[in-house]
Amino acid sequence: MSTTYMKYMGLFDELVNYGRFELGGKGYGLVQMTAIGLPVPPGIIILTSACKEYYRSGGKIPEGLFEELREKLKVLENRTGKKFGDPSNPLLVSVRSGAPYSMPGMMDTILNLGLNDAVAEGLVKLTGDERFVYDAYRRFIQMFARIAMGVKTDRFEKLLEETRHRLGVKFDIEIPASEMKKIVEKFKQIVREEKGMELPQDPFEQLKMAVEAVFRSWNNPRAVEYRRYYKIPDDLGTAVNIQMMVFGNLGEKSGSGVGFTRNPSTGEKKLYGEYLPKAQGEDVVAGIRTPFPIDKLEQKLLSQLEDMAKKLEQHFKDMQDFEFTVENDKLYMLQTRNGKRTAQAAVKIAVDMYKEGLISAAEALLRVDPNELNQLLHRRLDPSYKGKPIAKGLNASPGAASGIVVFDTNEAAQRGAKGEKIILVRPETTPEDIKGMIAAQGVLTSRGGMTSHAAVVARGMGKPAVVGCESIRINMDEGYFTTSEGLVVRKGDVITIDGGSGQVFFGEVPTTEPELTTELYELLRLADQHRRLGVRANADTPEAAEKARAFGAEGIGLCRTERMFNAPDRLPIVREMIMAQTPEERKAALAKLLPFQVNDFKQIFAVMKGLPVTVRLLDLPLHEFLPPAEEILKEMFELASSHGPQHEILMRQELLRKVLVLKEHNPMLGHRGCRLAIRYPEIYEMQVRAILKAAIDVRRQHGETAKIQIMLPLVSEKTELVILRKIIEETAEKVFEEIGERIDFKVGTMIETPRAALTASEIAEVADFFSFGTNDLTQTTFGFSRDDAEAKFMADYLEKKILPRNPFESVDVRGVGRLVKIATEEGKKANPRLEVGICGEHGGDPDSVKFFHAAGLDYVSASPYRVPIARLAAAQVAVGPVEKVAVTV
Amino acid sequence: MSTTYMKYMGLFDELVNYGRFELGGKGYGLVQMTAIGLPVPPGIIILTSACKEYYRSGGKIPEGLFEELREKLKVLENRTGKKFGDPSNPLLVSVRSGAPYSMPGMMDTILNLGLNDAVAEGLVKLTGDERFVYDAYRRFIQMFARIAMGVKTDRFEKLLEETRHRLGVKFDIEIPASEMKKIVEKFKQIVREEKGMELPQDPFEQLKMAVEAVFRSWNNPRAVEYRRYYKIPDDLGTAVNIQMMVFGNLGEKSGSGVGFTRNPSTGEKKLYGEYLPKAQGEDVVAGIRTPFPIDKLEQKLLSQLEDMAKKLEQHFKDMQDFEFTVENDKLYMLQTRNGKRTAQAAVKIAVDMYKEGLISAAEALLRVDPNELNQLLHRRLDPSYKGKPIAKGLNASPGAASGIVVFDTNEAAQRGAKGEKIILVRPETTPEDIKGMIAAQGVLTSRGGMTSHAAVVARGMGKPAVVGCESIRINMDEGYFTTSEGLVVRKGDVITIDGGSGQVFFGEVPTTEPELTTELYELLRLADQHRRLGVRANADTPEAAEKARAFGAEGIGLCRTERMFNAPDRLPIVREMIMAQTPEERKAALAKLLPFQVNDFKQIFAVMKGLPVTVRLLDLPLHEFLPPAEEILKEMFELASSHGPQHEILMRQELLRKVLVLKEHNPMLGHRGCRLAIRYPEIYEMQVRAILKAAIDVRRQHGETAKIQIMLPLVSEKTELVILRKIIEETAEKVFEEIGERIDFKVGTMIETPRAALTASEIAEVADFFSFGTNDLTQTTFGFSRDDAEAKFMADYLEKKILPRNPFESVDVRGVGRLVKIATEEGKKANPRLEVGICGEHGGDPDSVKFFHAAGLDYVSASPYRVPIARLAAAQVAVGPVEKVAVTV
Repeated sequence: MSTTYMKYMGLFDELVNYGRFELGGKGYGLVQMTAIGLPVPPGIIILTSACKEYYRSGGKIPEGLFEELREKLKVLENRTGKKFGDPSNPLLVSVRSGAPYSMPGMMDTILNLGLNDAVAEGLVKLTGDERFVYDAYRRFIQMFARIAMGVKTDRFEKLLEETRHRLGVKFDIEIPASEMKKIVEKFKQIVREEKGMELPQDPFEQLKMAVEAVFRSWNNPRAVEYRRYYKIPDDLGTAVNIQMMVFGNLGEKSGSGVGFTRNPSTGEKKLYGEYLPKAQGEDVVAGIRTPFPIDKLEQKLLSQLEDMAKKLEQHFKDMQDFEFTVENDKLYMLQTRNGKRTAQAAVKIAVDMYKEGLISAAEALLRVDPNELNQLLHRRLDPSYKGKPIAKGLNASPGAASGIVVFDTNEAAQRGAKGEKIILVRPETTPEDIKGMIAAQGVLTSRGGMTSHAAVVARGMGKPAVVGCESIRINMDEGYFTTSEGLVVRKGDVITIDGGSGQVFFGEVPTTEPELTTELYELLRLADQHRRLGVRANADTPEAAEKARAFGAEGIGLCRTERMFNAPDRLPIVREMIMAQTPEERKAALAKLLPFQVNDFKQIFAVMKGLPVTVRLLDLPLHEFLPPAEEILKEMFELASSHGPQHEILMRQELLRKVLVLKEHNPMLGHRGCRLAIRYPEIYEMQVRAILKAAIDVRRQHGETAKIQIMLPLVSEKTELVILRKIIEETAEKVFEEIGERIDFKVGTMIETPRAALTASEIAEVADFFSFGTNDLTQTTFGFSRDDAEAKFMADYLEKKILPRNPFESVDVRGVGRLVKIATEEGKKANPRLEVGICGEHGGDPDSVKFFHAAGLDYVSASPYRVPIARLAAAQVAVGPVEKVAVTV
Repeated sequence: MSTTYMKYMGLFDELVNYGRFELGGKGYGLVQMTAIGLPVPPGIIILTSACKEYYRSGGKIPEGLFEELREKLKVLENRTGKKFGDPSNPLLVSVRSGAPYSMPGMMDTILNLGLNDAVAEGLVKLTGDERFVYDAYRRFIQMFARIAMGVKTDRFEKLLEETRHRLGVKFDIEIPASEMKKIVEKFKQIVREEKGMELPQDPFEQLKMAVEAVFRSWNNPRAVEYRRYYKIPDDLGTAVNIQMMVFGNLGEKSGSGVGFTRNPSTGEKKLYGEYLPKAQGEDVVAGIRTPFPIDKLEQKLLSQLEDMAKKLEQHFKDMQDFEFTVENDKLYMLQTRNGKRTAQAAVKIAVDMYKEGLISAAEALLRVDPNELNQLLHRRLDPSYKGKPIAKGLNASPGAASGIVVFDTNEAAQRGAKGEKIILVRPETTPEDIKGMIAAQGVLTSRGGMTSHAAVVARGMGKPAVVGCESIRINMDEGYFTTSEGLVVRKGDVITIDGGSGQVFFGEVPTTEPELTTELYELLRLADQHRRLGVRANADTPEAAEKARAFGAEGIGLCRTERMFNAPDRLPIVREMIMAQTPEERKAALAKLLPFQVNDFKQIFAVMKGLPVTVRLLDLPLHEFLPPAEEILKEMFELASSHGPQHEILMRQELLRKVLVLKEHNPMLGHRGCRLAIRYPEIYEMQVRAILKAAIDVRRQHGETAKIQIMLPLVSEKTELVILRKIIEETAEKVFEEIGERIDFKVGTMIETPRAALTASEIAEVADFFSFGTNDLTQTTFGFSRDDAEAKFMADYLEKKILPRNPFESVDVRGVGRLVKIATEEGKKANPRLEVGICGEHGGDPDSVKFFHAAGLDYVSASPYRVPIARLAAAQVAVGPVEKVAVTV
């Protein structure tokens, strides 16, 4: 071992106490492998501190750096028994950059450094393989000239191409030794012409230039851009790895391979990888010959590798992706890092390693990216399919589905009933299209954003949807759509949509079933043991409720009632109610809706018995239940043209009048939610009646029912809640008296306007619970209409980094999050029994879930398919270090 | 004087150290007048504490109360030399309630208490006037029976009516003595029948019952309702005033009158009032005979009154409204209170009293309600006009105007140019209507709210407007509108609109010029010396800027640029810009707009030289500059029907396509303001260029120009400002280089989304100033679309007291105000040089101005016509006790 005072560098075995920030990622792996006794070709790492010093001094090599390097090199020579520039026993090295974070755009590798004319000749004698030597030499020149000397690579490439062409061969490897030797001479000539200087023949001169090239590469434009984009600090610097070359292409007993300590696709605990004899690492990747599976290796080597894999996992506590080379039967490890893996493998590996005692429960939970679970919970495109999509829209509801294109909702319903697989294609959907959506495998629309009718309903149904696919032009009348490339897709053609990516394909693309592995269930059970945050589901059908329970939801945090009003058998009655001229007429219509509502709730309450179900009373503005003005006008025009019955025209005139009266400039901020109930309390009275009747019925039938929570939408002032709570309680008393039986229920409110959050301390005095509606709260806090923002400018904002993420996907911590914190803290202070949850789409976003944990909420509610994601995210924030989610209030 | 220990009551002269809460309002006036030596008939006040005790004990007369009353009555008898129930020299008293706050619905007065059969006979002997006595007796019975005994009044009224009918007379006063005596007997009979008991003949018994009736009246339903509505505490209680009767109807040397110490209409410092000989106070009001002006009184009495008026003002330091009675040449004061007055009088009285040294500057400033100034600043309806309006809409822009009805904007422009006075009547206005609005005296629309195009533009122009007048139905094609009562108003008919009240009248109603009195100027100068808050104006034309300066604005806090784009000579170019297919086409169109913009700004900067002018860059969404889809469709249809030129149809097709592309679900939350500039920076570049060129031009021409502040709308994230500030600064450098001259300018931002307020500490780092756009901030904080809210549910919310005031008129302190405080405090902390103002409509609302003072803002900006109001309000909050405007942050 060297006893020299270490300033800027060390041999691998001298650096075992250094971390990733000093050694870079690659160097860290090499040092650690050396430390645990794996066969790593020896080498030197110049620490990142040298690079930092280089930049601090304005681009000057730190004083003494090369002197220290020369000293270390001597140690390396002693260690390897080879000498730099010694033709009889030359030391060749690779030089690589190594930043703390993997950073594409940094310096490439320079292999075979140390070669010069004399060493080449010596090596020919040593190996007896002239072609190997001159191929290595020309590769070195090409890499070195480009990277260390700034020679453009095209003249080299052109020369190689001309030679291949002249010889009539396809690959460089087919170029014979004699030609390769000539190429080396010509390459040196190119360097001379381009730079006016010789290729350095002194190996140490080569090394110095290579080291400075690595330093410079830290600040090349691509690297700077990359760091800016990923917010990686500019002052980390890069290390330089200088390592003795070993050669996998030195004859039959040599070769190179890559391996994974476990199967990266399935997670199976079995060494996995490929080996190519007579090859360098880069040849394995190039794919000229086919490598064979690692388990077909001869037993001795395989045992050695298995042994090393075990050591790697014991040491790194994770599945490793490693590279190795065999030189004349001797195995060398060249690189190791945590292996990339599929979601399925990630889950299995985490659970297995936990069970093996290799990692703790917390580590197992933190090992899986919650977002990736999404892949496991929906039918998805066969990953091996390589076809090109014909269009791309917004990925509104995950999952893949194939079916024939149908444009008419009635036709979709009819053909769906016959068992045909349908993709419903519409410019956008309306309540009228529900029956078509129910019958369809998936939905494709050309307009609308992530909260459009199609998107919301499809997500609620758990059906794939691609919306706002603006590049297609739909001709409804003639029954076809065209893509931007001019492809005409007609009614009856089969297409496949992938709601996870927003892609649309022509024809049927194979899809795979969601794989709910045993390991995923185990992981989520582990999560449940560790999380503080409750997880409920947003569900408004019995089917969704069952799915939610199956996925581990501890209740329903949001049961919307809009769809119940929109169902085809009720819409005519709802319209009757809206068109009512007197409260009596309105009440009569509502009385007809009551039995439907009772039935809706009974089914859900039976599924969820024992668990809380939060029913949100009607939120939509009334005009959403009426047909659009254009449609009525068109019908009127047709009736008039065909001399249709006068009363039919009059009826439509009246309908049109109502539509125009109800029309709003900004419906999102209009007369809806509790505001509507202040004017027309009858609607909520009917709903409360239905909820309580249903709950009592279910209790009679099953002995138990769900825990009833009645929720008011769009409150912005305490008095709204006071007035409506009184109406709800009076209605409840009437129902209890009629039935002769009571049932407990709670009354709470959505917090979805900034004012509700800002006055939470007042509202909490009259609320049993809060539930943040972060979709609307984000809209109002930013002043963004989600549909308009996503259609018009959100992409621009994300691309320009004005916003780090779409705030409708991941909660905006500084703005919306601050309101959430204010309301939670002040609400709970005013009413210590207040239960606080969130039921916006953010309830299924892992980063948001972590924020809600930190903000002190009691639970999140997510769509059933995201419940597992929320469970895992909630556990991660409970066991891991809380990320920076705190905001000042 | 009595030496009895005083518990629940005292004589007037014993109560001089008691205040309004113990004495009630009426009693306080009597006690104070007694104290300063005015001739007040002596009397007793039972303090409010007795009433409180009555309620505390569940409705029992406090122990010892009547004993104390009997004692005090003896003192009163001694003082007056008359005796209760003594036919030879009877004491008669009035009994009145007297709450601390004037409260309609409380007990009425009982006059002449102490009368009974014997006293009546005695009085006939004393006065020799039998009719007088029995009229007084029957009035007493009627009042006492109703108030103290709960007898319904209709049998009394019916009997009087029958008697008048039988005698063929019109008024009770014409009923002769003999009949009146019979009526007294019949009244007693009614009491007997209704209550099964005699009318009490014992005067003290009468008094006890009257006192308890006053106590009970505190909790009668109307009084309770009134207190609930005005948030007056329920536990204040009422006092009882028992006062010796004096009679203004005792012959020729008696009479009654009311007076004001100064003219309540003009403020002139001269006794003002009316006197009616041979009459009680109530007869003056009844209007049977015409009273004569007080200055026509005989000199001795007039001098006496003038002397008393002076004493009253010296004592109360305010103009007094008093009642008096003369009984046989002797003057008695019966009541005094601060007099109601017109706005004009309020201003003059405050200034005069300040100059007389009667009140301090602070008192003078607090004496005038800033809202009332509004009446003085616009042409208004002749106050004497009593006609009935034909319709009522929203009072969108104050002032009154008459003119002929014109529906077509071009016709309005043409006829206006000829000097005709026009009222432009439209369903709603669009940018196309600007030329008609410029030509018109006022605007009437049947649709739209307080921020509709018509309302905003009219307020900006200072023109009267009534909008959203939904009761009229406009038939544009045939050129008439109908009112809800079926009146048909045709094109060319004259109507008058009152934008201050929202009323519409048929025909020409006389109007009066705004009276900008010397006193108002003096008052406002006084205000300027005392206020801390700056006052600027919202103005976007040179005319508005001149008006603003004339009204004392210290700069322009908001110069909108939308109207400049909307002007008829520019709209085609703006549309060219919107329809541009490439940035080059867009820039070419913008280049054409540049000279217009330069000219706009030059005029304004010249008017405002030396003062800051804050120009807000374009805020509107682009679709607002395009015609509505329906209109284009109609034109296309017409062209198609008439086989019009194909290229015209194609042009409209392209326009329609663009309109549909730009269409938004919620335009208020859509692609506008700085969001548009992020995508199309060319628009702001042109505007910045125009602003700076104009400023440099004006400086060259006049030696001085306005201080330039460039403001960005709708920022919700710091990065938006960073990006746009850079564009502005780069553009400025280019302009300076081209011109060869520099000019200072500031860059700031509107704070009009909750997120901007919540992240103010970040935004302040890159802003020179903030200006709260409280209109939009209110919309987003509540989640209210103003147009929709005011059209659909605001009236309901105010009526149901869900909100105390329309938050678009007076700032919502708890929600919006909390955001204003957060942003001001955190913004100034992050950037101590940050200037903070507000330019929403709240800048002209006195309560809001007071809040903004308390919240630490630097200035408010209001429409020119509200600048005087803001100046006064700002002074009031600076000199007066800060009202409860603090909120926790």
